[in-house]
Amino acid sequence: MEGKVESLWEEVRELTLGTTVDRLQSPPTPLQFLRDFVSQSKPCIISNAISHWPALSLWSTPSYLATALSSSLVSLHLTPDGQADALVPHPSQSSLCFVSAHVQPTLFPQALDLIRLPPSHLVAYLQQQNDCFRTEYSELESDCDAHIPWASEALGCLPEAVNLWIGNHLSQTSFHKDHYENLYAVVSGEKHFLLLPPTDVHRMYIKEYPAARYSYSQENGEFRLEVEEPERYVPWSSVDPCPARASLKQESLKFPLYFNGPKPFEVTVKAGEVLYLPSMWFHHVRQSPGDGGCTIAVNYWYDMQFDIKYAYFNFLQSLPCRSIDDQTIPEGDSEDDSGPHASSNHLNSRFSGDESATNNVEIHKDRDNVEVHERTFVLDSSMFVWFF
Amino acid sequence: MEGKVESLWEEVRELTLGTTVDRLQSPPTPLQFLRDFVSQSKPCIISNAISHWPALSLWSTPSYLATALSSSLVSLHLTPDGQADALVPHPSQSSLCFVSAHVQPTLFPQALDLIRLPPSHLVAYLQQQNDCFRTEYSELESDCDAHIPWASEALGCLPEAVNLWIGNHLSQTSFHKDHYENLYAVVSGEKHFLLLPPTDVHRMYIKEYPAARYSYSQENGEFRLEVEEPERYVPWSSVDPCPARASLKQESLKFPLYFNGPKPFEVTVKAGEVLYLPSMWFHHVRQSPGDGGCTIAVNYWYDMQFDIKYAYFNFLQSLPCRSIDDQTIPEGDSEDDSGPHASSNHLNSRFSGDESATNNVEIHKDRDNVEVHERTFVLDSSMFVWFF
Repeated sequence: MEGKVESLWEEVRELTLGTTVDRLQSPPTPLQFLRDFVSQSKPCIISNAISHWPALSLWSTPSYLATALSSSLVSLHLTPDGQADALVPHPSQSSLCFVSAHVQPTLFPQALDLIRLPPSHLVAYLQQQNDCFRTEYSELESDCDAHIPWASEALGCLPEAVNLWIGNHLSQTSFHKDHYENLYAVVSGEKHFLLLPPTDVHRMYIKEYPAARYSYSQENGEFRLEVEEPERYVPWSSVDPCPARASLKQESLKFPLYFNGPKPFEVTVKAGEVLYLPSMWFHHVRQSPGDGGCTIAVNYWYDMQFDIKYAYFNFLQSLPCRSIDDQTIPEGDSEDDSGPHASSNHLNSRFSGDESATNNVEIHKDRDNVEVHERTFVLDSSMFVWFF
Repeated sequence: MEGKVESLWEEVRELTLGTTVDRLQSPPTPLQFLRDFVSQSKPCIISNAISHWPALSLWSTPSYLATALSSSLVSLHLTPDGQADALVPHPSQSSLCFVSAHVQPTLFPQALDLIRLPPSHLVAYLQQQNDCFRTEYSELESDCDAHIPWASEALGCLPEAVNLWIGNHLSQTSFHKDHYENLYAVVSGEKHFLLLPPTDVHRMYIKEYPAARYSYSQENGEFRLEVEEPERYVPWSSVDPCPARASLKQESLKFPLYFNGPKPFEVTVKAGEVLYLPSMWFHHVRQSPGDGGCTIAVNYWYDMQFDIKYAYFNFLQSLPCRSIDDQTIPEGDSEDDSGPHASSNHLNSRFSGDESATNNVEIHKDRDNVEVHERTFVLDSSMFVWFF
């Protein structure tokens, strides 16, 4: 691969990121955290930051959780295969669509059983990125800290949302990014992250996909895939970083910038550890269960700064990339609405209050759905040119 | 003007910079300074940060300085017109060259007289960006703080260089940038800055110019302009932001991205105030004398982080811009040595130790001289295309 964008991928690694994610054996001071990680948009893993949480010992015992939340109705996400907020074949076209899970209000003990002892026909995942830990799971609040003190001091604010995640090894989260500084604490089991910095946005092959949703019938135990009406498009990464062995070669040909570029940062976050995941970093997440039969994590979303880094990112993202088989720049391409102005609109919408963490059940998705993004890339070859 | 780079200039202002430089009425906490300014690459002016310095009252009295430094030999910079580190007509070609001042070791009291009461044939400026305050002017050290405490704590280090500047209204510093976080304290008189963020690099029309030097003859009081042998090239901004009225139109046609783009930030820093000038910001400086007949400032250079912002800057700078009259991309252009790899070399050279502040009398110039930069822009029209 050649060109200036490829050099950017290399340079950011040479200058600051290195090849592995830093590990701190104790919490940093707020100044150190801000200077060495947040300001530099650099992830790190912190040990011994949540050792005092009662959750660390209590939550590995399923009966403790089931008792604490015995009468709580929680939002259970159901899919046939553990892939929600992911790309699946479109039900009526020979293309892909972006599918969300069926969300089933469920009594917590029943939900936990479905996660720990998965039936063959569905995968259940407790995850609702709408500040759910402080709402649906408020009975557990005293088992954790309300925020990460050194992060709050560094960032100058309290978390805008705190989310709980309880899943099993079948659930994955596909590549995406969030407009938040993220402190991700694992309480039970392990989370396996693949991370790419914002500089690598073109390697994600972000493209608009029609939005769809699983509808699960409890009567016959079957999922129906329903495309949203009216049509809605979601910009999403086309890359599956862990394809089946048989399709790896084909995927590499379709997404050479991802598969032939610098390896993503691979990070396993164990129970008791906290990952700092900087805003705008792309992340793909898998998980391994702990002693209680599931993986449990709590993450804290803090407001990010929409600063010069964000402006640079939008600029980079606005630059087109096409295969040498399709060198014609469509008319008006340079004036499309995917440039920084579109992102300013996005920013405005974020600050308009209609996405506040406590009122919006789809805060995470909405964020990404209004995200600016590249036009469709046409990539039929492993040879590329960049149009600048 | 159109295009994605122009949108970047606008977006960084809309998102974070605004249209004026923030003013703080008291020193920020280290965390606030790091979070709100350094991390965001955003300048600010701080009042009441150096009120306790004895220098503020003492240095406006020329006799105090002349007595304190009565036997000090200092590096006096002499030019015919106050323009050093600036572009002037090449002595033997119909083009420009980059000229440095004649540096004359001079007893301080004599140097001060030349600044306060300038003769008609020369302009004298005491400025030596080699940590001179702690070397040539060490007798004055107790009149100031050795560092800016909240900045040192925020940045996690002590200044790499502290420089003293004593000049008059005739001296200007042309547009350039430094690879340092800069805390610039004015002690007497006023400094007038024009500032442009790193995102605006193309508006500076940085081009390589042959290096030259003034040689001043004390015998006949004349300056000779000598081009360096062997030839050496210095990347420097082609833009004079304050051209003579008669040539403004012509300059606007030559440098439309500068003159027709967003206005630079205009900042006057008065005696007793401190400017935080973020690394990589372009700055042009004029000055007005204080009561003692000269302008006096002390600046603290702190190491910058070579992080994702720096990588984005190098990427941006590597993108070519040419006039629509010259749309042919020269062969091999995308592979020239002005890309991020070249900047990595620069970084290596910075860390190689051959530019340490205490050993290198030309630390500032060397920094910029090895700077990566754009190839020559051909700009004969106010209409542009960007090549992406």
